[in-house]
Amino acid sequence: MNTVEIIKKKRDGGSLSPQELRHMIDGFTAGEIPDYQMSAFLMAIYFQGMEKAEARELVILMVNSGATVDLKNVDLPKVDKHSTGGIGDKTTLILAPLLASCGVAYPTISGRGLGHTGGTLDKLESIPGFDCYLSTKRFAELLSTVGLGFLGQTEEICPADRKIYALRDVTGTVESNPLIVASIMSKKLAEGIDGIVFDVKCGSGAFMKDEPRARSLAQALVEAAKAAGKQASALISSMDGSLGWAVGNAIEVNECVAYLRRGPQDAAPNPRLHELIMELATELFAVAELARGKKRPNPGPIREMLEEAIASGKAYSKLLEIVSLQGGDTSALDEGLPLSSKKLTFTAPRSGTIQAINGEKIGFALIELGGGRLKKSDKVDPGVGFWFEKEMGDRVEKGDKIAQIYAKDAKSAEKARTMLEEAFSITNGSIEKPSLILGRI
Amino acid sequence: MNTVEIIKKKRDGGSLSPQELRHMIDGFTAGEIPDYQMSAFLMAIYFQGMEKAEARELVILMVNSGATVDLKNVDLPKVDKHSTGGIGDKTTLILAPLLASCGVAYPTISGRGLGHTGGTLDKLESIPGFDCYLSTKRFAELLSTVGLGFLGQTEEICPADRKIYALRDVTGTVESNPLIVASIMSKKLAEGIDGIVFDVKCGSGAFMKDEPRARSLAQALVEAAKAAGKQASALISSMDGSLGWAVGNAIEVNECVAYLRRGPQDAAPNPRLHELIMELATELFAVAELARGKKRPNPGPIREMLEEAIASGKAYSKLLEIVSLQGGDTSALDEGLPLSSKKLTFTAPRSGTIQAINGEKIGFALIELGGGRLKKSDKVDPGVGFWFEKEMGDRVEKGDKIAQIYAKDAKSAEKARTMLEEAFSITNGSIEKPSLILGRI
Repeated sequence: MNTVEIIKKKRDGGSLSPQELRHMIDGFTAGEIPDYQMSAFLMAIYFQGMEKAEARELVILMVNSGATVDLKNVDLPKVDKHSTGGIGDKTTLILAPLLASCGVAYPTISGRGLGHTGGTLDKLESIPGFDCYLSTKRFAELLSTVGLGFLGQTEEICPADRKIYALRDVTGTVESNPLIVASIMSKKLAEGIDGIVFDVKCGSGAFMKDEPRARSLAQALVEAAKAAGKQASALISSMDGSLGWAVGNAIEVNECVAYLRRGPQDAAPNPRLHELIMELATELFAVAELARGKKRPNPGPIREMLEEAIASGKAYSKLLEIVSLQGGDTSALDEGLPLSSKKLTFTAPRSGTIQAINGEKIGFALIELGGGRLKKSDKVDPGVGFWFEKEMGDRVEKGDKIAQIYAKDAKSAEKARTMLEEAFSITNGSIEKPSLILGRI
Repeated sequence: MNTVEIIKKKRDGGSLSPQELRHMIDGFTAGEIPDYQMSAFLMAIYFQGMEKAEARELVILMVNSGATVDLKNVDLPKVDKHSTGGIGDKTTLILAPLLASCGVAYPTISGRGLGHTGGTLDKLESIPGFDCYLSTKRFAELLSTVGLGFLGQTEEICPADRKIYALRDVTGTVESNPLIVASIMSKKLAEGIDGIVFDVKCGSGAFMKDEPRARSLAQALVEAAKAAGKQASALISSMDGSLGWAVGNAIEVNECVAYLRRGPQDAAPNPRLHELIMELATELFAVAELARGKKRPNPGPIREMLEEAIASGKAYSKLLEIVSLQGGDTSALDEGLPLSSKKLTFTAPRSGTIQAINGEKIGFALIELGGGRLKKSDKVDPGVGFWFEKEMGDRVEKGDKIAQIYAKDAKSAEKARTMLEEAFSITNGSIEKPSLILGRI
């Protein structure tokens, strides 16, 4: 098959056969098709899109490019959530033990953070001793016995996706729905799940800045999951500031512990984080029920069950159990992971109402502290981060504390503070707190 | 400057600044921007096009990427023709001595053939001893004293174009007007000319298969040349079969000799070749007059002058003179260059009218004989080729000779014969001979 002819066919809006797509994906993964032909092909896909049959085939080719996790022997329904990435998004660390404590298996395969959004793997690794590099056999065992497990994405899973993503990142071809969908779906299908809930973020802290594009991506994701025979639904959620009080690695783990434990020493749950957790967990439970062949349950009783799983301590126990089984130090977790010692307070530069928070700027402020990565090889400092005390729509007086900054030194703390100041817009009037959930599919 | 941001800007339809274009072109030529980013950028240009200012800047960057020929000391007006490539197109070998014999300097920088179209350099090198690799100083000298000269395109001229073209060829990004225009114009501007006439071919044997696309390319070429301060015009000419009687290397040189010499031993000029030569030469002379600051002359008297330059033998003398000065064996030229010894006749497979001739197929039949290249490293056999005796619109009886095939062996001759049979469509009805000149700009 002729690579140039296939590129031209896509360029001219033609529909590629499974054989043609296989030639491109398998050939590229095997190193037979050079980067420069693949990047031209990806740009042609950016402009011409893909038909449903092509998109479905692309996902299959990416899954089959590497190893998959066999969870057939796990009797529980297996669900997972995928978030398109936000600032301070620690929902996976809460949802996995919460769902597992309600009889639903929750396999998680995670990567590291890159750019302004964080990665679940970095957060987990801030727990001393925690090891994400399990064999897939051990991962399946944990899911059978505990109902959850955290696996770091390895070289063996979806190598085609990893290679293609690395190329998209440097050739301006990231923002293509069929490519985004294939990248997400291939990794989720390799995970062996029965159902999935997508959390498509929309706003200044998200990859998708506007709602129509977020909705179109959500639609494409749900369609792709259903085409692959999975139960699926999607939420479109606002991502304008950060999600929850904490942004950082250890500090976000601490927020998750506080959220699940609800001890007298713990900060009250962040209302927007709580709302999102309840929405996602309800949807995940419903998807699990559908995967079991049951009818879609009413949300009211599910929500009660979820609240009860937290209140009774069952969900927190699940977290402690899996951390312990994956080698993590549960007493360090329970005592609160240590944060960097250089503290600085970010206070309101003027009185007014917090009108907007630029999430992306908060993400870059975290990178400035050393808590995120600009390139893959960057090391992440687990102890740095922010603890916010105010949200969008809150009234502040000049000098009021908005956030606590934890840094390794005074210089980076001050730089991050300046960046936070730029991220927050304070207005004279008052504004209505924006809705968290913008849509459902 | 951020390469990915520049790719995205073009992808999103933005207009690039001279600095951004310089970053891309100079960076790529210097090997600082990798192939995979350039190919994505080229595909984005394919889809988004370029604004006039961008296209102009691109040409300038390509010219400045390498050496240019200094013809300032050549007093005569200097003109050149650019053909977008056809089958059996030997016009350069006729136009250069013809124009030089009429007091117009005609510098030619040529490349080798690739794919189904031939290259002037391969044709010239079928003359024993002929050497195209002159210094640019010697080239300028020849233009001053003889009025013409043939220079092989070297590594030093427009290296950016050579590198970009090689990448376009394998990434499906050849068919983009601004890129085609920049590739052509940069080489012509590096040549130091005052005026240019474009021969944009249109039809089955040409790069542009349909007239609207050919017209739009012609328009873009003329605009680009005028933007660079050159006199310019364009013809759109039909390229459905081959141009002239001969297709091959030595055999085309022999046809040029016959055309200019008009001796009793010579075949009568091919009518379509003659028409195109007269059209192009008239236009080239007009452009030269404009470059001298004169008014556009009437075509009638120019045509008379051109016919007289041929009839008097002045044009043929110019050819012999330059061949001799560039080391070529003029007696071999005058006697007729030797052709391959294995001859086979291609006869009409049925009676009827020649309705269509697929030029591209003729080009590939020549490659089959060993007279063309599929890849750059292929060697070309100068002696093989075809001499056609019939044209589109001619009536043939079954068994009539349509072409003489010159091959190195019986096997390739037979294979080429089968390919010619596929290239010729013979119909029962009669057709009108199609016009050669489809438009002028």
